[in-house]
Amino acid sequence: MATSGAIPSERPGDLRIFGIGGIPEVQSGDDLIGLIGEAIVAAGQTVLPGDVVVVTHKIVSKSEGQLVDLRTVEPSPFAIEFARPTGKDPRQVEVVLRESVRVSRMDAQRGVIIAETRHGFICANAAVDASNVAPDIVCLLPKDPDASAARIREGLAARFGLAGDDAPAVIVSDSFGRAWRAGIINVAVGVAGLAPLADYRGQHDASGYELRATVIAIGDELASAAELVQNKLDARPVTIIRGYVPQTDTPAGTGRDLIMPPERDLYR
Amino acid sequence: MATSGAIPSERPGDLRIFGIGGIPEVQSGDDLIGLIGEAIVAAGQTVLPGDVVVVTHKIVSKSEGQLVDLRTVEPSPFAIEFARPTGKDPRQVEVVLRESVRVSRMDAQRGVIIAETRHGFICANAAVDASNVAPDIVCLLPKDPDASAARIREGLAARFGLAGDDAPAVIVSDSFGRAWRAGIINVAVGVAGLAPLADYRGQHDASGYELRATVIAIGDELASAAELVQNKLDARPVTIIRGYVPQTDTPAGTGRDLIMPPERDLYR
Repeated sequence: MATSGAIPSERPGDLRIFGIGGIPEVQSGDDLIGLIGEAIVAAGQTVLPGDVVVVTHKIVSKSEGQLVDLRTVEPSPFAIEFARPTGKDPRQVEVVLRESVRVSRMDAQRGVIIAETRHGFICANAAVDASNVAPDIVCLLPKDPDASAARIREGLAARFGLAGDDAPAVIVSDSFGRAWRAGIINVAVGVAGLAPLADYRGQHDASGYELRATVIAIGDELASAAELVQNKLDARPVTIIRGYVPQTDTPAGTGRDLIMPPERDLYR
Repeated sequence: MATSGAIPSERPGDLRIFGIGGIPEVQSGDDLIGLIGEAIVAAGQTVLPGDVVVVTHKIVSKSEGQLVDLRTVEPSPFAIEFARPTGKDPRQVEVVLRESVRVSRMDAQRGVIIAETRHGFICANAAVDASNVAPDIVCLLPKDPDASAARIREGLAARFGLAGDDAPAVIVSDSFGRAWRAGIINVAVGVAGLAPLADYRGQHDASGYELRATVIAIGDELASAAELVQNKLDARPVTIIRGYVPQTDTPAGTGRDLIMPPERDLYR
Protein backbone atom coordinates (compact mmCIF):
# COMPACT_ATOMS: atom_id res chain seq x y z
CA MET A 1 0.00 0.00 0.00
CA ALA A 2 1.44 3.37 -0.99
CA THR A 3 1.80 6.19 1.49
CA SER A 4 1.35 9.81 0.56
CA GLY A 5 4.38 11.01 -1.37
CA ALA A 6 5.32 7.66 -2.86
CA ILE A 7 5.15 7.33 -6.65
CA PRO A 8 3.88 3.83 -7.31
CA SER A 9 4.63 1.93 -10.47
CA GLU A 10 2.03 1.68 -13.18
CA ARG A 11 -0.44 -1.14 -13.66
CA PRO A 12 -1.95 -2.65 -16.81
CA GLY A 13 -4.24 -0.14 -18.47
CA ASP A 14 -2.44 2.89 -17.08
CA LEU A 15 -1.20 5.36 -19.66
CA ARG A 16 2.00 7.28 -20.18
CA ILE A 17 2.08 10.20 -22.57
CA PHE A 18 5.37 11.58 -23.86
CA GLY A 19 5.70 14.84 -25.79
CA ILE A 20 8.44 14.88 -28.41
CA GLY A 21 9.98 18.20 -29.41
CA GLY A 22 13.21 19.15 -31.12
CA ILE A 23 11.92 18.76 -34.67
CA PRO A 24 13.41 21.48 -36.91
CA GLU A 25 11.14 23.69 -39.04
CA VAL A 26 9.68 21.27 -41.59
CA GLN A 27 9.94 22.14 -45.30
CA SER A 28 8.01 20.83 -48.26
CA GLY A 29 9.56 17.55 -49.38
CA ASP A 30 11.33 16.85 -46.09
CA ASP A 31 11.63 13.25 -44.92
CA LEU A 32 9.07 13.65 -42.14
CA ILE A 33 9.35 10.08 -40.87
CA GLY A 34 13.12 10.45 -40.62
CA LEU A 35 12.72 13.70 -38.67
CA ILE A 36 10.15 12.18 -36.31
CA GLY A 37 12.27 9.08 -35.76
CA GLU A 38 15.37 11.18 -34.99
CA ALA A 39 13.43 13.39 -32.57
CA ILE A 40 12.02 10.37 -30.74
CA VAL A 41 15.48 8.89 -30.28
CA ALA A 42 17.02 12.26 -29.35
CA ALA A 43 14.34 12.63 -26.65
CA GLY A 44 15.52 9.35 -25.14
CA GLN A 45 12.38 7.60 -26.34
CA THR A 46 11.46 4.80 -28.66
CA VAL A 47 8.33 3.31 -30.23
CA LEU A 48 7.04 0.08 -28.72
CA PRO A 49 4.30 -2.37 -29.81
CA GLY A 50 0.91 -0.97 -28.81
CA ASP A 51 2.06 2.67 -28.84
CA VAL A 52 -0.14 5.34 -30.39
CA VAL A 53 1.87 8.09 -32.09
CA VAL A 54 -0.02 11.35 -32.52
CA VAL A 55 1.38 13.84 -35.04
CA THR A 56 -0.03 17.35 -35.43
CA HIS A 57 -1.23 17.90 -38.97
CA LYS A 58 0.87 21.06 -39.25
CA ILE A 59 4.18 19.24 -39.77
CA VAL A 60 2.50 16.66 -42.00
CA SER A 61 0.99 19.38 -44.18
CA LYS A 62 4.29 21.26 -44.36
CA SER A 63 6.22 18.16 -45.45
CA GLU A 64 3.56 17.50 -48.08
CA GLY A 65 3.69 21.08 -49.36
CA GLN A 66 0.10 21.79 -48.32
CA LEU A 67 0.86 25.51 -47.96
CA VAL A 68 -0.48 28.52 -49.80
CA ASP A 69 1.55 31.69 -50.34
CA LEU A 70 -0.97 34.50 -49.86
CA ARG A 71 1.06 36.72 -52.21
CA THR A 72 -0.17 34.50 -55.02
CA VAL A 73 -3.85 34.79 -54.05
CA GLU A 74 -6.25 37.27 -55.66
CA PRO A 75 -9.20 37.72 -53.28
CA SER A 76 -12.67 37.80 -54.82
CA PRO A 77 -14.96 40.79 -54.18
CA PHE A 78 -16.96 38.49 -51.87
CA ALA A 79 -13.86 37.67 -49.78
CA ILE A 80 -12.89 41.36 -49.61
CA GLU A 81 -16.41 42.28 -48.45
CA PHE A 82 -16.48 39.51 -45.84
CA ALA A 83 -13.06 40.50 -44.45
CA ARG A 84 -13.85 44.22 -44.13
CA PRO A 85 -15.70 44.42 -40.73
CA THR A 86 -13.00 42.52 -38.82
CA GLY A 87 -9.90 43.60 -40.74
CA LYS A 88 -9.09 40.00 -41.64
CA ASP A 89 -6.72 39.30 -44.51
CA PRO A 90 -9.04 38.95 -47.55
CA ARG A 91 -6.50 36.69 -49.24
CA GLN A 92 -6.78 34.27 -46.33
CA VAL A 93 -10.58 34.44 -46.53
CA GLU A 94 -10.27 33.62 -50.22
CA VAL A 95 -8.23 30.51 -49.42
CA VAL A 96 -10.81 29.45 -46.83
CA LEU A 97 -13.59 29.73 -49.42
CA ARG A 98 -11.56 27.78 -51.96
CA GLU A 99 -10.99 25.00 -49.41
CA SER A 100 -14.72 24.82 -48.59
CA VAL A 101 -17.15 22.52 -50.36
CA ARG A 102 -20.05 23.91 -48.29
CA VAL A 103 -20.41 26.79 -45.87
CA SER A 104 -22.36 25.89 -42.74
CA ARG A 105 -22.35 29.33 -41.05
CA MET A 106 -20.80 32.70 -42.01
CA ASP A 107 -20.82 35.85 -39.90
CA ALA A 108 -18.82 38.77 -41.29
CA GLN A 109 -19.28 40.93 -38.18
CA ARG A 110 -17.50 38.32 -36.08
CA GLY A 111 -15.28 37.00 -38.84
CA VAL A 112 -16.60 33.46 -38.44
CA ILE A 113 -16.68 30.90 -41.26
CA ILE A 114 -17.71 27.35 -40.34
CA ALA A 115 -17.26 25.25 -43.45
CA GLU A 116 -17.03 21.70 -44.68
CA THR A 117 -13.71 20.67 -46.20
CA ARG A 118 -13.49 18.30 -49.13
CA HIS A 119 -12.58 15.56 -46.62
CA GLY A 120 -15.98 16.12 -44.93
CA PHE A 121 -14.71 17.85 -41.78
CA ILE A 122 -16.88 20.70 -40.53
CA CYS A 123 -14.70 23.24 -38.75
CA ALA A 124 -13.71 26.90 -38.52
CA ASN A 125 -12.07 28.36 -41.62
CA ALA A 126 -12.13 25.00 -43.41
CA ALA A 127 -9.04 24.19 -41.30
CA VAL A 128 -6.94 26.89 -43.01
CA ASP A 129 -4.46 28.07 -40.39
CA ALA A 130 -1.89 30.89 -40.16
CA SER A 131 -0.24 29.93 -36.86
CA ASN A 132 3.20 28.31 -36.72
CA VAL A 133 3.95 29.06 -40.36
CA ALA A 134 5.96 31.85 -42.00
CA PRO A 135 4.30 35.27 -42.57
CA ASP A 136 2.11 35.38 -45.71
CA ILE A 137 1.82 31.59 -45.67
CA VAL A 138 -1.22 29.60 -44.59
CA CYS A 139 -1.38 25.89 -43.92
CA LEU A 140 -4.05 23.51 -45.23
CA LEU A 141 -4.92 20.01 -44.04
CA PRO A 142 -3.11 17.13 -45.73
CA LYS A 143 -4.87 16.09 -48.94
CA ASP A 144 -5.61 12.63 -47.49
CA PRO A 145 -4.87 12.57 -43.74
CA ASP A 146 -5.61 8.83 -43.50
CA ALA A 147 -3.05 8.10 -46.20
CA SER A 148 -0.57 10.34 -44.36
CA ALA A 149 -1.21 8.45 -41.12
CA ALA A 150 -0.75 5.11 -42.89
CA ARG A 151 2.56 6.26 -44.43
CA ILE A 152 3.88 7.50 -41.08
CA ARG A 153 2.78 4.24 -39.46
CA GLU A 154 4.64 2.16 -42.02
CA GLY A 155 7.72 4.38 -41.80
CA LEU A 156 7.90 4.33 -38.01
CA ALA A 157 7.36 0.56 -37.95
CA ALA A 158 10.36 0.14 -40.27
CA ARG A 159 12.46 2.69 -38.33
CA PHE A 160 11.83 1.01 -34.96
CA GLY A 161 11.80 -2.60 -36.18
CA LEU A 162 8.13 -3.33 -35.47
CA ALA A 163 6.60 -5.81 -37.92
CA GLY A 164 2.94 -6.65 -38.56
CA ASP A 165 0.58 -6.01 -35.66
CA ASP A 166 3.44 -4.55 -33.62
CA ALA A 167 3.40 -1.43 -35.84
CA PRO A 168 2.28 1.62 -33.82
CA ALA A 169 -1.10 3.19 -34.40
CA VAL A 170 -0.78 6.69 -35.87
CA ILE A 171 -3.15 9.65 -35.54
CA VAL A 172 -2.82 12.90 -37.48
CA SER A 173 -4.45 15.59 -35.33
CA ASP A 174 -5.90 19.06 -35.71
CA SER A 175 -7.72 21.29 -33.21
CA PHE A 176 -11.38 22.00 -33.99
CA GLY A 177 -14.03 24.14 -32.32
CA ARG A 178 -17.33 22.61 -31.30
CA ALA A 179 -20.97 23.58 -31.29
CA TRP A 180 -22.27 24.37 -27.77
CA ARG A 181 -18.89 24.28 -26.03
CA ALA A 182 -16.21 26.93 -25.68
CA GLY A 183 -12.64 26.44 -26.81
CA ILE A 184 -11.02 24.08 -29.27
CA ILE A 185 -9.92 20.50 -28.69
CA ASN A 186 -7.62 18.18 -30.57
CA VAL A 187 -9.34 15.64 -32.80
CA ALA A 188 -8.13 12.87 -35.11
CA VAL A 189 -8.27 13.83 -38.80
CA GLY A 190 -6.19 10.87 -39.97
CA VAL A 191 -6.01 7.42 -38.39
CA ALA A 192 -4.07 4.23 -39.13
CA GLY A 193 -3.86 0.97 -37.20
CA LEU A 194 -6.50 1.84 -34.62
CA ALA A 195 -10.28 1.64 -34.15
CA PRO A 196 -11.21 5.33 -33.88
CA LEU A 197 -14.67 4.38 -32.56
CA ALA A 198 -14.99 1.87 -29.72
CA ASP A 199 -18.38 0.27 -30.19
CA TYR A 200 -19.80 -1.06 -26.92
CA ARG A 201 -23.29 -1.63 -28.33
CA GLY A 202 -24.68 -5.00 -27.33
CA GLN A 203 -22.27 -5.41 -24.42
CA HIS A 204 -23.62 -5.35 -20.84
CA ASP A 205 -22.54 -3.11 -18.00
CA ALA A 206 -21.97 -4.20 -14.39
CA SER A 207 -25.72 -3.87 -13.69
CA GLY A 208 -26.60 -6.15 -16.60
CA TYR A 209 -27.93 -3.25 -18.67
CA GLU A 210 -27.34 -3.63 -22.40
CA LEU A 211 -25.47 -0.60 -23.74
CA ARG A 212 -27.54 0.53 -26.70
CA ALA A 213 -25.92 3.77 -27.76
CA THR A 214 -22.37 3.71 -26.44
CA VAL A 215 -19.88 4.35 -29.21
CA ILE A 216 -16.84 6.20 -27.87
CA ALA A 217 -14.73 8.34 -30.17
CA ILE A 218 -11.42 6.93 -28.92
CA GLY A 219 -9.51 8.50 -31.83
CA ASP A 220 -10.56 11.98 -30.76
CA GLU A 221 -9.93 11.22 -27.08
CA LEU A 222 -6.40 10.03 -27.88
CA ALA A 223 -5.79 13.18 -29.94
CA SER A 224 -7.07 15.33 -27.05
CA ALA A 225 -4.88 13.49 -24.56
CA ALA A 226 -1.86 14.16 -26.79
CA GLU A 227 -2.61 17.89 -26.91
CA LEU A 228 -2.04 18.09 -23.15
CA VAL A 229 1.71 17.63 -23.69
CA GLN A 230 2.06 19.41 -27.06
CA ASN A 231 2.58 22.85 -25.54
CA LYS A 232 1.22 25.00 -28.37
CA LEU A 233 4.00 27.57 -28.06
CA ASP A 234 7.12 25.48 -27.81
CA ALA A 235 6.59 22.94 -30.46
CA ARG A 236 6.19 19.34 -29.35
CA PRO A 237 4.34 18.22 -32.47
CA VAL A 238 4.70 14.48 -31.85
CA THR A 239 3.28 12.56 -28.91
CA ILE A 240 3.66 8.94 -27.89
CA ILE A 241 0.77 7.41 -25.92
CA ARG A 242 1.86 4.18 -24.26
CA GLY A 243 -0.33 1.63 -22.54
CA TYR A 244 -3.69 2.23 -24.23
CA VAL A 245 -5.62 -1.04 -24.29
CA PRO A 246 -8.64 -1.17 -26.65
CA GLN A 247 -11.75 -2.26 -24.77
CA THR A 248 -13.79 -3.48 -27.71
CA ASP A 249 -13.23 -5.68 -30.76
CA THR A 250 -14.08 -2.85 -33.16
CA PRO A 251 -11.71 -3.33 -36.13
CA ALA A 252 -9.15 -0.70 -37.14
CA GLY A 253 -10.52 2.14 -39.25
CA THR A 254 -9.78 5.61 -40.53
CA GLY A 255 -10.37 9.22 -39.61
CA ARG A 256 -13.44 9.20 -41.83
CA ASP A 257 -15.18 6.94 -39.30
CA LEU A 258 -15.19 9.95 -36.95
CA ILE A 259 -17.19 12.13 -39.33
CA MET A 260 -20.92 12.04 -38.57
CA PRO A 261 -22.71 10.80 -41.70
CA PRO A 262 -24.64 13.78 -43.12
CA GLU A 263 -27.96 11.92 -42.95
CA ARG A 264 -27.51 11.44 -39.19
CA ASP A 265 -26.13 14.93 -38.48
CA LEU A 266 -28.84 17.26 -37.15
CA TYR A 267 -26.55 20.32 -37.03
CA ARG A 268 -25.00 20.81 -40.46
CA MET B 1 20.01 7.45 -26.14
CA ALA B 2 17.41 4.74 -25.84
CA THR B 3 17.47 1.64 -27.94
CA SER B 4 14.37 -0.14 -29.16
CA GLY B 5 12.82 -2.06 -26.29
CA ALA B 6 14.08 0.18 -23.49
CA ILE B 7 11.46 2.03 -21.45
CA PRO B 8 12.97 5.41 -20.65
CA SER B 9 11.98 7.43 -17.62
CA GLU B 10 9.63 10.32 -17.98
CA ARG B 11 10.57 13.97 -18.42
CA PRO B 12 8.91 17.19 -17.21
CA GLY B 13 5.63 17.68 -19.00
CA ASP B 14 5.07 13.99 -19.63
CA LEU B 15 1.82 12.60 -18.29
CA ARG B 16 0.84 9.48 -16.40
CA ILE B 17 -2.79 8.45 -16.20
CA PHE B 18 -3.98 5.94 -13.60
CA GLY B 19 -7.43 4.36 -13.62
CA ILE B 20 -8.85 3.61 -10.17
CA GLY B 21 -11.41 0.84 -9.79
CA GLY B 22 -12.65 -1.18 -6.85
CA ILE B 23 -15.29 1.31 -5.72
CA PRO B 24 -18.39 -0.54 -4.49
CA GLU B 25 -21.84 0.32 -5.89
CA VAL B 26 -22.47 3.86 -4.64
CA GLN B 27 -25.71 4.58 -2.77
CA SER B 28 -27.46 7.84 -2.07
CA GLY B 29 -25.88 9.46 0.99
CA ASP B 30 -22.63 7.48 0.79
CA ASP B 31 -19.39 9.20 1.79
CA LEU B 32 -18.09 9.46 -1.78
CA ILE B 33 -14.82 11.14 -0.84
CA GLY B 34 -14.11 8.37 1.67
CA LEU B 35 -14.84 5.71 -0.96
CA ILE B 36 -12.62 7.43 -3.55
CA GLY B 37 -9.81 7.88 -1.04
CA GLU B 38 -9.95 4.22 -0.01
CA ALA B 39 -9.98 3.04 -3.62
CA ILE B 40 -6.96 5.21 -4.47
CA VAL B 41 -4.96 3.78 -1.58
CA ALA B 42 -6.15 0.21 -2.27
CA ALA B 43 -4.91 0.61 -5.86
CA GLY B 44 -1.45 1.42 -4.50
CA GLN B 45 -1.85 5.04 -5.50
CA THR B 46 -1.96 8.41 -3.79
CA VAL B 47 -2.79 12.01 -4.69
CA LEU B 48 0.15 14.36 -5.19
CA PRO B 49 0.36 18.14 -5.66
CA GLY B 50 -0.47 19.01 -9.26
CA ASP B 51 -2.61 15.91 -9.83
CA VAL B 52 -5.90 16.18 -11.68
CA VAL B 53 -8.52 13.75 -10.37
CA VAL B 54 -11.32 12.98 -12.83
CA VAL B 55 -14.50 11.45 -11.41
CA THR B 56 -17.33 10.20 -13.62
CA HIS B 57 -20.54 12.03 -12.80
CA LYS B 58 -22.36 8.72 -12.33
CA ILE B 59 -20.91 7.99 -8.89
CA VAL B 60 -21.23 11.65 -7.90
CA SER B 61 -24.90 11.69 -8.91
CA LYS B 62 -25.58 8.41 -7.12
CA SER B 63 -24.01 9.64 -3.86
CA GLU B 64 -26.07 12.82 -4.15
CA GLY B 65 -29.28 10.90 -4.78
CA GLN B 66 -29.70 12.31 -8.29
CA LEU B 67 -31.65 9.25 -9.40
CA VAL B 68 -35.22 8.86 -10.57
CA ASP B 69 -37.24 5.69 -10.04
CA LEU B 70 -39.20 5.27 -13.27
CA ARG B 71 -41.97 3.44 -11.37
CA THR B 72 -42.88 6.83 -9.87
CA VAL B 73 -43.06 8.59 -13.25
CA GLU B 74 -46.33 9.12 -15.15
CA PRO B 75 -45.44 9.79 -18.79
CA SER B 76 -47.32 12.57 -20.57
CA PRO B 77 -49.22 11.81 -23.79
CA PHE B 78 -46.44 13.69 -25.61
CA ALA B 79 -43.75 11.42 -24.12
CA ILE B 80 -45.80 8.31 -24.96
CA GLU B 81 -46.23 9.49 -28.55
CA PHE B 82 -42.52 10.32 -28.93
CA ALA B 83 -41.45 6.92 -27.54
CA ARG B 84 -43.77 4.86 -29.78
CA PRO B 85 -41.75 4.58 -33.06
CA THR B 86 -38.57 3.33 -31.34
CA GLY B 87 -40.09 1.38 -28.44
CA LYS B 88 -38.27 3.59 -25.93
CA ASP B 89 -39.48 3.67 -22.34
CA PRO B 90 -41.97 6.59 -22.27
CA ARG B 91 -41.26 7.14 -18.56
CA GLN B 92 -37.60 7.75 -19.40
CA VAL B 93 -38.61 10.16 -22.18
CA GLU B 94 -40.76 11.95 -19.61
CA VAL B 95 -37.76 12.37 -17.30
CA VAL B 96 -35.68 13.71 -20.21
CA LEU B 97 -38.33 16.32 -20.98
CA ARG B 98 -38.55 17.32 -17.31
CA GLU B 99 -34.76 17.76 -17.17
CA SER B 100 -34.77 19.94 -20.31
CA VAL B 101 -35.10 23.70 -20.25
CA ARG B 102 -35.05 23.82 -24.06
CA VAL B 103 -35.18 21.20 -26.78
CA SER B 104 -32.67 21.79 -29.58
CA ARG B 105 -33.64 18.86 -31.84
CA MET B 106 -36.17 16.04 -31.51
CA ASP B 107 -36.65 13.15 -33.93
CA ALA B 108 -39.16 10.51 -32.85
CA GLN B 109 -38.33 8.14 -35.72
CA ARG B 110 -34.74 7.87 -34.51
CA GLY B 111 -35.50 8.43 -30.82
CA VAL B 112 -33.20 11.45 -30.64
CA ILE B 113 -33.67 14.29 -28.17
CA ILE B 114 -30.91 16.91 -28.01
CA ALA B 115 -31.78 19.23 -25.16
CA GLU B 116 -30.36 21.91 -22.92
CA THR B 117 -30.15 21.06 -19.22
CA ARG B 118 -30.75 23.66 -16.53
CA HIS B 119 -26.96 23.88 -16.14
CA GLY B 120 -26.76 25.00 -19.79
CA PHE B 121 -25.27 21.80 -21.25
CA ILE B 122 -26.60 20.82 -24.66
CA CYS B 123 -26.50 17.05 -25.02
CA ALA B 124 -28.47 13.93 -25.86
CA ASN B 125 -31.39 13.15 -23.54
CA ALA B 126 -30.55 16.10 -21.27
CA ALA B 127 -27.84 13.82 -19.81
CA VAL B 128 -30.43 11.37 -18.41
CA ASP B 129 -28.76 7.96 -18.45
CA ALA B 130 -29.89 4.39 -17.79
CA SER B 131 -26.50 2.64 -17.97
CA ASN B 132 -24.67 1.45 -14.86
CA VAL B 133 -27.71 1.93 -12.62
CA ALA B 134 -30.31 -0.55 -11.36
CA PRO B 135 -33.26 -1.52 -13.61
CA ASP B 136 -36.09 1.07 -13.60
CA ILE B 137 -33.69 3.73 -12.31
CA VAL B 138 -32.20 6.57 -14.37
CA CYS B 139 -29.35 8.84 -13.39
CA LEU B 140 -29.33 12.64 -13.72
CA LEU B 141 -26.39 15.02 -13.62
CA PRO B 142 -25.41 16.42 -10.21
CA LYS B 143 -27.49 19.50 -9.38
CA ASP B 144 -24.34 21.68 -9.34
CA PRO B 145 -21.38 19.75 -10.81
CA ASP B 146 -18.95 22.59 -10.01
CA ALA B 147 -19.95 22.49 -6.34
CA SER B 148 -19.55 18.69 -6.40
CA ALA B 149 -16.05 19.07 -7.89
CA ALA B 150 -15.13 21.67 -5.25
CA ARG B 151 -16.34 19.41 -2.43
CA ILE B 152 -14.41 16.41 -3.77
CA ARG B 153 -11.33 18.62 -4.15
CA GLU B 154 -11.53 19.81 -0.57
CA GLY B 155 -12.17 16.30 0.72
CA LEU B 156 -9.29 14.71 -1.20
CA ALA B 157 -6.93 17.51 -0.13
CA ALA B 158 -7.79 16.78 3.51
CA ARG B 159 -7.58 13.00 3.00
CA PHE B 160 -4.12 13.15 1.38
CA GLY B 161 -2.74 16.05 3.44
CA LEU B 162 -2.46 18.56 0.63
CA ALA B 163 -2.99 22.14 1.80
CA GLY B 164 -3.65 25.30 -0.22
CA ASP B 165 -2.37 25.24 -3.80
CA ASP B 166 -1.25 21.63 -3.36
CA ALA B 167 -4.90 20.50 -3.43
CA PRO B 168 -5.57 18.43 -6.55
CA ALA B 169 -7.69 19.78 -9.37
CA VAL B 170 -10.95 17.86 -9.72
CA ILE B 171 -13.08 17.30 -12.82
CA VAL B 172 -16.53 15.73 -12.81
CA SER B 173 -17.00 14.16 -16.25
CA ASP B 174 -19.79 12.95 -18.49
CA SER B 175 -19.74 11.68 -22.08
CA PHE B 176 -21.50 13.85 -24.66
CA GLY B 177 -22.16 13.48 -28.36
CA ARG B 178 -21.10 16.20 -30.76
CA ALA B 179 -22.44 17.90 -33.85
CA TRP B 180 -20.59 16.82 -37.01
CA ARG B 181 -18.57 14.03 -35.43
CA ALA B 182 -19.48 10.43 -34.68
CA GLY B 183 -19.29 8.90 -31.23
CA ILE B 184 -19.27 10.39 -27.76
CA ILE B 185 -16.32 11.80 -25.86
CA ASN B 186 -15.76 12.59 -22.21
CA VAL B 187 -16.12 16.25 -21.27
CA ALA B 188 -15.83 18.21 -18.02
CA VAL B 189 -19.21 19.14 -16.52
CA GLY B 190 -17.76 20.22 -13.17
CA VAL B 191 -14.33 21.74 -12.53
CA ALA B 192 -12.46 22.88 -9.42
CA GLY B 193 -8.89 24.13 -9.02
CA LEU B 194 -8.06 24.22 -12.71
CA ALA B 195 -8.34 26.59 -15.69
CA PRO B 196 -10.70 24.66 -17.99
CA LEU B 197 -9.80 26.97 -20.89
CA ALA B 198 -6.15 27.69 -21.68
CA ASP B 199 -6.15 31.12 -23.29
CA TYR B 200 -3.17 31.61 -25.59
CA ARG B 201 -4.54 34.77 -27.19
CA GLY B 202 -1.91 37.49 -27.42
CA GLN B 203 0.99 35.06 -27.07
CA HIS B 204 3.32 34.49 -30.02
CA ASP B 205 4.21 31.19 -31.65
CA ALA B 206 7.70 30.10 -32.75
CA SER B 207 7.25 32.01 -36.04
CA GLY B 208 6.39 35.24 -34.18
CA TYR B 209 2.72 34.99 -35.22
CA GLU B 210 0.32 36.34 -32.61
CA LEU B 211 -2.24 33.69 -31.71
CA ARG B 212 -5.58 35.44 -32.07
CA ALA B 213 -8.12 32.70 -31.58
CA THR B 214 -6.38 29.95 -29.66
CA VAL B 215 -8.33 29.01 -26.55
CA ILE B 216 -7.92 25.32 -25.75
CA ALA B 217 -10.59 23.47 -23.80
CA ILE B 218 -8.09 21.78 -21.47
CA GLY B 219 -10.87 20.69 -19.10
CA ASP B 220 -12.52 18.64 -21.83
CA GLU B 221 -9.19 17.28 -23.07
CA LEU B 222 -8.30 16.11 -19.54
CA ALA B 223 -11.74 14.46 -19.22
CA SER B 224 -11.23 12.72 -22.59
CA ALA B 225 -7.76 11.55 -21.58
CA ALA B 226 -9.25 10.07 -18.40
CA GLU B 227 -11.89 8.14 -20.36
CA LEU B 228 -9.11 6.15 -22.06
CA VAL B 229 -8.46 4.25 -18.80
CA GLN B 230 -12.03 4.19 -17.42
CA ASN B 231 -13.00 0.99 -19.22
CA LYS B 232 -16.74 1.58 -19.55
CA LEU B 233 -17.60 -2.00 -18.70
CA ASP B 234 -15.45 -2.75 -15.69
CA ALA B 235 -15.91 0.32 -13.65
CA ARG B 236 -12.86 2.50 -13.09
CA PRO B 237 -14.83 5.65 -12.34
CA VAL B 238 -11.88 7.64 -10.91
CA THR B 239 -8.77 8.65 -12.81
CA ILE B 240 -5.61 10.38 -11.65
CA ILE B 241 -3.74 12.44 -14.25
CA ARG B 242 -0.23 13.21 -13.06
CA GLY B 243 2.25 15.63 -14.62
CA TYR B 244 -0.06 18.05 -16.41
CA VAL B 245 1.60 21.46 -16.53
CA PRO B 246 -0.67 24.41 -17.43
CA GLN B 247 0.82 26.38 -20.32
CA THR B 248 -1.00 29.67 -19.77
CA ASP B 249 -1.72 31.96 -16.82
CA THR B 250 -5.49 31.60 -17.26
CA PRO B 251 -6.90 31.56 -13.71
CA ALA B 252 -8.84 28.59 -12.32
CA GLY B 253 -12.49 28.46 -13.31
CA THR B 254 -15.51 26.20 -13.45
CA GLY B 255 -17.27 23.83 -15.80
CA ARG B 256 -19.51 26.70 -16.84
CA ASP B 257 -16.54 28.29 -18.63
CA LEU B 258 -16.73 25.39 -21.10
CA ILE B 259 -20.30 26.18 -22.14
CA MET B 260 -20.42 28.34 -25.28
CA PRO B 261 -22.28 31.55 -24.43
CA PRO B 262 -25.65 31.37 -26.27
CA GLU B 263 -24.99 34.67 -28.07
CA ARG B 264 -21.81 33.19 -29.59
CA ASP B 265 -23.25 29.76 -30.34
CA LEU B 266 -24.29 29.42 -33.97
CA TYR B 267 -25.72 25.91 -33.57
CA ARG B 268 -28.27 25.95 -30.76
